[in-house]
Amino acid sequence: MGLITLLTDFGYRDHYVAALKARLLQLAPATTVVDISHGVEPFNIAHAVHVLQSVFRDFPSGTVHVIGVDDHGAGTEPGWQAALFEGHYFVAGDNGILALLTSGAPEALVALPAAVTPSPTRDVLLPAAVALAQGAGLASLGPLITTFHQLNNRQLRLQDHRITGHVAHIDHYGNLITNISRTAVDAVGHGRGFAVYFGRDVVKEVHPHFSAAPPGEAVAVFNSQGCLCLGICQGNASELLGLHFDSQVDVRFPVE
Amino acid sequence: MGLITLLTDFGYRDHYVAALKARLLQLAPATTVVDISHGVEPFNIAHAVHVLQSVFRDFPSGTVHVIGVDDHGAGTEPGWQAALFEGHYFVAGDNGILALLTSGAPEALVALPAAVTPSPTRDVLLPAAVALAQGAGLASLGPLITTFHQLNNRQLRLQDHRITGHVAHIDHYGNLITNISRTAVDAVGHGRGFAVYFGRDVVKEVHPHFSAAPPGEAVAVFNSQGCLCLGICQGNASELLGLHFDSQVDVRFPVE
Amino acid sequence: MGLITLLTDFGYRDHYVAALKARLLQLAPATTVVDISHGVEPFNIAHAVHVLQSVFRDFPSGTVHVIGVDDHGAGTEPGWQAALFEGHYFVAGDNGILALLTSGAPEALVALPAAVTPSPTRDVLLPAAVALAQGAGLASLGPLITTFHQLNNRQLRLQDHRITGHVAHIDHYGNLITNISRTAVDAVGHGRGFAVYFGRDVVKEVHPHFSAAPPGEAVAVFNSQGCLCLGICQGNASELLGLHFDSQVDVRFPVE
Repeated sequence: MGLITLLTDFGYRDHYVAALKARLLQLAPATTVVDISHGVEPFNIAHAVHVLQSVFRDFPSGTVHVIGVDDHGAGTEPGWQAALFEGHYFVAGDNGILALLTSGAPEALVALPAAVTPSPTRDVLLPAAVALAQGAGLASLGPLITTFHQLNNRQLRLQDHRITGHVAHIDHYGNLITNISRTAVDAVGHGRGFAVYFGRDVVKEVHPHFSAAPPGEAVAVFNSQGCLCLGICQGNASELLGLHFDSQVDVRFPVE
Repeated sequence: MGLITLLTDFGYRDHYVAALKARLLQLAPATTVVDISHGVEPFNIAHAVHVLQSVFRDFPSGTVHVIGVDDHGAGTEPGWQAALFEGHYFVAGDNGILALLTSGAPEALVALPAAVTPSPTRDVLLPAAVALAQGAGLASLGPLITTFHQLNNRQLRLQDHRITGHVAHIDHYGNLITNISRTAVDAVGHGRGFAVYFGRDVVKEVHPHFSAAPPGEAVAVFNSQGCLCLGICQGNASELLGLHFDSQVDVRFPVE
Repeated sequence: MGLITLLTDFGYRDHYVAALKARLLQLAPATTVVDISHGVEPFNIAHAVHVLQSVFRDFPSGTVHVIGVDDHGAGTEPGWQAALFEGHYFVAGDNGILALLTSGAPEALVALPAAVTPSPTRDVLLPAAVALAQGAGLASLGPLITTFHQLNNRQLRLQDHRITGHVAHIDHYGNLITNISRTAVDAVGHGRGFAVYFGRDVVKEVHPHFSAAPPGEAVAVFNSQGCLCLGICQGNASELLGLHFDSQVDVRFPVE
């Protein structure tokens, strides 16, 4: 019996998460379930993608990830899908989440059967996830499809001496996680030092962690996923610097 | 060994929930426990009743539900009870929650022994719940009683061409869940179309789900429990419409 | 296989807690894990200490408590430790938490090996906790040490007819938990009655619980840990009285 994770925007004050747990107890009481978070901002697809992308590879191969965010899909008719990507399964509404997670290229994609329900995560996505966790093949859930709702991530702009990126997520501490990867910095920089420009601030050093600078000072680090992050040691960078989701961040290298 | 659910207003930042878990590990380490929510608003009995009523039937028959909200009861002396209702067990302070949950008519009701403790959920309700989950009969926990603290729900007002109800709960998304049931609408409407009046808005159609209208538009749906709900597609209806707990909602049918 | 508890300031909206769970599934899938809270205020050591001190003794002897708060430690170089205290194990950054928890005197203390990681709770503390839960001795984790970062708690000031203390924690309900213990009150009071002065309020009676007074009235109780607590029956005492962490609270006895 496999492992199921749950990521939703259901919050912590209603019965919505408990309704999933109750259904799981009915369908497959022995399944191991890990709550990734139920604190995704309502309908915030970027938030859901950031969280899941940051952690799904840490789970065993074959894990089934249920995404209960904007779960009717983006069309006027509800639509639901299951995908295989990097050895993990994902079930979600057809709202663009799977396109962002898989960079538009899942290894396999099926359409789940249509249903009329006010609770698709519970009534459509969860039963599909349980079937996958119990060993059903993806193709047994519905017809293979090749198109789905497409959303595109902000692209990095790479120049000879400069990378222009954006804030992709503000975390619980107010840290700014950008879409600038260590790989991009290495590719453009060839080992040169660099400065990070964001708002009115400049940081000229990458620290190993946010606490490596004096409290109150701006710090740049690469996080566990290799993304450039900006923070204030023991402070809320988003509030203190006035930067938010999608704010521009520049990495500049010296022109020799 | 049965199943125990926990519903409290203990929140997520203190040790109060962990104290319950630690006690459960002592009393019955093999029990399956489901956290329904610990995010009930402090002392908000209507909130607790809404959440539990929406989900308790989804759990297996014989489940024991611990309600840690306003847990000394409503009297000047603390009072605690256990009830059987629709095949489920409930333990709670004598504060009116059981009256609302069971519409004043539990199938059986017992008084739990008096105790002096600052933590009745941990010290009184949880041990009683564990005994029930381990198969003890209700009557073994205390004397059968027939009276308990009574609270009455807002009643629906049914007229020939109109139903007057109220907002019974605001959920995490800001959706307005009313006490107007599909059954009442069918009984009064006899298949007639109808319009829903709330604040300054009117909605003339019931959609299958909140995302079935354009973003920003008011939508009416029947939720999984058959209650009429009002929302704004991808928006917070409570904030945007200025409606709150107990706000009036009217369903009007055409006069032929 | 032992029991592991988790206490962090990671919050409920990111992947940080799930990354711990995923690592635990890799390292020791059969371990029992209890989430104490992930809602500690960012970097708030006093908050973390209060919560853990209030509940750790309720868990079985030998439990391993992981503290993911300010987890690089207080020095400019990261530092991590494991301690034995009252039969329980604690792993934490060297930031003063262990000094407060153990009153500066753990039964044994070891330094964990240095590492370079942006996620010390996941990469340093958790593996050490798993080893302890699997029966490894403390000394197998690193060299025994005798010094660690010291923080001192606010001391009680005891006089013949007066105890001066402070608010040590504001809980989810807004109740004020002080550092004035029942033991101190008994030792100074010798059975005399007393009045509690806080802000502009005076309370002359200790109630058995917060609901023992009329709604809206200030109440003093001793909590399950024997600490003097001040609250407003069904209200938020911190907001209503304007008292916060560290506000002064006096207990005065009559001068015969």
